[in-house]
Amino acid sequence: MTKIPVVQQILSANDAIADENRAALDAAGALGVNVMASPGAGKTSLILATAARLPAGLRLAVIEGDVAGRIDADAMAAAGIPVVQINTGGGCHLDAPMVRSALPHLLPDGVDMLMIENVGNLICPAGFALGTHVNLVVASTPEGHDKPYKYPGMFAAADVVTLNKADVAAVFDFDFDAFQRGVRMVNPAAPIFVISCRTGEGVNAWVDWLTAQHAVMPRPPKHS
Amino acid sequence: MTKIPVVQQILSANDAIADENRAALDAAGALGVNVMASPGAGKTSLILATAARLPAGLRLAVIEGDVAGRIDADAMAAAGIPVVQINTGGGCHLDAPMVRSALPHLLPDGVDMLMIENVGNLICPAGFALGTHVNLVVASTPEGHDKPYKYPGMFAAADVVTLNKADVAAVFDFDFDAFQRGVRMVNPAAPIFVISCRTGEGVNAWVDWLTAQHAVMPRPPKHS
Repeated sequence: MTKIPVVQQILSANDAIADENRAALDAAGALGVNVMASPGAGKTSLILATAARLPAGLRLAVIEGDVAGRIDADAMAAAGIPVVQINTGGGCHLDAPMVRSALPHLLPDGVDMLMIENVGNLICPAGFALGTHVNLVVASTPEGHDKPYKYPGMFAAADVVTLNKADVAAVFDFDFDAFQRGVRMVNPAAPIFVISCRTGEGVNAWVDWLTAQHAVMPRPPKHS
Repeated sequence: MTKIPVVQQILSANDAIADENRAALDAAGALGVNVMASPGAGKTSLILATAARLPAGLRLAVIEGDVAGRIDADAMAAAGIPVVQINTGGGCHLDAPMVRSALPHLLPDGVDMLMIENVGNLICPAGFALGTHVNLVVASTPEGHDKPYKYPGMFAAADVVTLNKADVAAVFDFDFDAFQRGVRMVNPAAPIFVISCRTGEGVNAWVDWLTAQHAVMPRPPKHS
């Protein structure tokens, strides 16, 4: 009887800060995207492929979440993308306070889209709101088509799914129909984009969808 | 100041039960293997490939840990392997009490090796001892060679590493040397077996190593 109130307190504190983050993003006119996936599904590759195809003038910034290291942040910086690295030091997910601490390093310089690469983990990140507008789940064909059945919480939390490494699907006997049925069991509406960051297949359609999400954001008040 | 004692209490309670599990495995003469990996790295495939190659008379049993579903347990049963399914209902790792609850369903029938397929997660499972003798981490080439740098805690916890899907390494520009250097940064001694469960490459060497671990276990007392 003593544990449950503590858990509720932690979650509601995270949610309150997530709401603050969302307000900060709205005020900046920046679409926030929480990028979640298994380790190695291709989160970084998708962000880089997206950056290369965003309409001119749409300014992207990135927050990199990792247990350790700055490999992906270095890749972003090399591509000229403003980036902040968050190291969780063993923690299995980003939370709203971590994101809050990163926002002042990015938003003041003018950001239209903020992609937050969460820690590679198909379970825990789904339980912690960051204040983003879009929850993106990146699946990949080498992981197998059974992932939505085994990790339903993550796919239920998705606003959109990209299925990466489509170019090698045949190597892994990947069953697209079974994957889609699995997603639909827990998520009736999220668009599913079949893509390959390596070949570029399908990436334009994903970027068009993402750009449209930014276009329909409420406009921040003009400062004159 | 109030949270840390709670965390310590949970961990030591888990460790105490892990010790009980270890004693139960020792008494049964069963080598316990904690199989940890990202989602889709090939834990199930490795267990099935191992089962097919174990020396005759060495009896394998399996505990399947999943957030939801029984897909892998069904695969084990179809292969004639005694199996117990643990569903964590959202939990991101197995713990020692879960394993304790499964042991009475398996050990009394005679088990020489118990492989415990943990929840697919490259972070959290490393923090919870189950009472096994061997911590196995299954990596795979599609995940990329940078995983030991990004998830050092998991690779530090490994007694042995198998690198699966070696047959498709070239497709993913996988750098074996970089992977090995990453493992060695946090783990100076764990053997690394490069394998493909699909082609069978390297699996015999892994099974030989595993069988040798069983051979050197202390013999349980004879009951006459």
